[in-house]
Amino acid sequence: MSRIITLTTDFGLEDEFAGVMKGVILSRAPGVTIVDLSHAIERQNIRQAALLIRSAYRFFPAGTIHLVVVDPGVGSDRKLILLEADNHLFLAPDNGLLGMLFEPDHFQAAHEIECPQFYLTSQSTTFHGRDILAPVAAQLAAGLNPALVGSVIEVQNLIKIEFAAPIFDGNRSMITGEITGSDHFGNLQTNIGKEMIDNLAGKSSNAVRITVKGKSINGILDAFADKAPGEMLALVGSRGVLEIAVNRGNASDQLCAGVGDEVRVEKLVC
Amino acid sequence: MSRIITLTTDFGLEDEFAGVMKGVILSRAPGVTIVDLSHAIERQNIRQAALLIRSAYRFFPAGTIHLVVVDPGVGSDRKLILLEADNHLFLAPDNGLLGMLFEPDHFQAAHEIECPQFYLTSQSTTFHGRDILAPVAAQLAAGLNPALVGSVIEVQNLIKIEFAAPIFDGNRSMITGEITGSDHFGNLQTNIGKEMIDNLAGKSSNAVRITVKGKSINGILDAFADKAPGEMLALVGSRGVLEIAVNRGNASDQLCAGVGDEVRVEKLVC
Amino acid sequence: MSRIITLTTDFGLEDEFAGVMKGVILSRAPGVTIVDLSHAIERQNIRQAALLIRSAYRFFPAGTIHLVVVDPGVGSDRKLILLEADNHLFLAPDNGLLGMLFEPDHFQAAHEIECPQFYLTSQSTTFHGRDILAPVAAQLAAGLNPALVGSVIEVQNLIKIEFAAPIFDGNRSMITGEITGSDHFGNLQTNIGKEMIDNLAGKSSNAVRITVKGKSINGILDAFADKAPGEMLALVGSRGVLEIAVNRGNASDQLCAGVGDEVRVEKLVC
Repeated sequence: MSRIITLTTDFGLEDEFAGVMKGVILSRAPGVTIVDLSHAIERQNIRQAALLIRSAYRFFPAGTIHLVVVDPGVGSDRKLILLEADNHLFLAPDNGLLGMLFEPDHFQAAHEIECPQFYLTSQSTTFHGRDILAPVAAQLAAGLNPALVGSVIEVQNLIKIEFAAPIFDGNRSMITGEITGSDHFGNLQTNIGKEMIDNLAGKSSNAVRITVKGKSINGILDAFADKAPGEMLALVGSRGVLEIAVNRGNASDQLCAGVGDEVRVEKLVC
Repeated sequence: MSRIITLTTDFGLEDEFAGVMKGVILSRAPGVTIVDLSHAIERQNIRQAALLIRSAYRFFPAGTIHLVVVDPGVGSDRKLILLEADNHLFLAPDNGLLGMLFEPDHFQAAHEIECPQFYLTSQSTTFHGRDILAPVAAQLAAGLNPALVGSVIEVQNLIKIEFAAPIFDGNRSMITGEITGSDHFGNLQTNIGKEMIDNLAGKSSNAVRITVKGKSINGILDAFADKAPGEMLALVGSRGVLEIAVNRGNASDQLCAGVGDEVRVEKLVC
Repeated sequence: MSRIITLTTDFGLEDEFAGVMKGVILSRAPGVTIVDLSHAIERQNIRQAALLIRSAYRFFPAGTIHLVVVDPGVGSDRKLILLEADNHLFLAPDNGLLGMLFEPDHFQAAHEIECPQFYLTSQSTTFHGRDILAPVAAQLAAGLNPALVGSVIEVQNLIKIEFAAPIFDGNRSMITGEITGSDHFGNLQTNIGKEMIDNLAGKSSNAVRITVKGKSINGILDAFADKAPGEMLALVGSRGVLEIAVNRGNASDQLCAGVGDEVRVEKLVC
């Protein structure tokens, strides 16, 4: 079987939680390939997981099944959903985790997961990732028709969470956005996409000034090494958004900046 | 080959230790599926690993091979053993790691691992997981008869470690147990199983009071979200034992509680 | 497909970085086996990764493809290389990561990776592991001839970094070496190989004194448990080099020792 199942959770790696999900999957879909995207989502941080899965899924082949489990409402009346989007399948609690895939250019269909014949025989109330989502994912990998997991849900009935959108000022000479996260290297990710900057600055990416936490950076560079070690720079990172970095350093620590902090990009008059 | 080998160690993930075990396995059993249960067992903590493997193995198919390596005695005269229990195979140092699988309802057979023709040609004295257990596991996955790894050991000759058992008071109105661990979320696990609570409290799980570190909780709930964020609750967790948790919080930190702390469950008179 | 691809990076596990490399690989080489060696190389620590891959690769079958990505120069004019050494394939930035495999007894051939038809269609400037090395590795796993990735580079034109070599004093009665790293357990690894010690001390490994940070240890033992818990000892570890350890303790913390600290091994007159 060549199907792939990816896992994104806030479970950490010290307990058996991720491992037993794999046991449940492999019991029902022998030979399926399982890939960990991250088990180090901050506990209960739905936004972080939503951003990660939106960035990551497209590097997998069409038909890949993505399990996303950040589930503070487990055991309550929150729904579990199967989303078909951009020719991938996503299984998650209906709590906003998949909301970045609800736009018309991605969304294809959604079903509530509600048919217990696909679950583990005995279910806990605190680990539906293991007891419900993992066996359903395995059976999808083994050929189960997605339409059979439960009834259709219209996209407008799914839970969304709001992400701040970057805005142009009136005459398109400035973008105001914000920090959305920082990575393992302390590089600060923003919600400002490459196209928006291109729109602002035209062809010369050096004719901009980026300001965050009172510090300003001139120009958008290609490589960390385009600045001296310890110096700050802006670039378009591997997620396709503006990032603030420090060559061989940690921008998050150096700026004391984090999620929600404002980032401004201004067009410079040459 | 559809056999599965799981790994549980205290090796951490920063060094090559887990990775080279996989290299050794895949060199001898191409295509076998390897699943990490945890490499973040606390250094030398045999009890933690014993509890984890006992909880985790049953989510894998019968015939799965479980390698458990927490081995402070490596290179000394401690034995290495192959345990057949509940239709799974377990390989580990004979230091108590597998002791929770020695009861008659699990135990099937045990062999000492003592036949060097199955080992790496050149063995270190400090990494028998790589040099002995991994190649033996691979050859078992490839079809080696377990009886061929070495001579039979009777169960009474295997090393056991004692785990405190929860006790009923005289008239079955109270259980006294203890904390056995805490998970990534700070949820506190106990040694008090669901059946024991059912026995105490009868059908109404709300007619109990749980006390730990001087704090009392009334009732056993189903879901973290049944309490407000930051509030403490008791529930039966995914390992099937009583757990103390804080909704969206960390019970271990909030109670300053840990392994060995007493937990009491009392039947309330309604 | 039975080919194996290993991954060694400084990416950490919290982001999607390692996971999306796997997605890129599995999209182009379905069914290939991917093994994480470590994603916890210290950020930008080329030496640590160079030591790890040199120690680890030989536990995998010939023909294994090893991706090593510690790449502070990503997006600059540093080269990416494909090294054939000891019948394994290695892909990495040309920054010294693979320098320990350049000796004549390992080295077979090197090519610059420079043919964009094997890359992702759209490449970032900050993540060549995902955009260039992963797809090239996948295509090698799927049968691509290594010679087709780019032009030959002579070994003398590859970037090397210097590692201090241990030295004998004039009459071979003492070795002076250094600490090269410490592992998850705090065991201190040195650059002093087993053969060199054998050369010094002859057949009796107890007739030596090891000194580090002003503390002396007599003899080289086989097992951690050969000393009482908390006591320091020297042994030849699983990498085949002299290590300083504390039984059930942490030598790195206890000695406050780290990379570059001097280690002396003296022959004792009996």
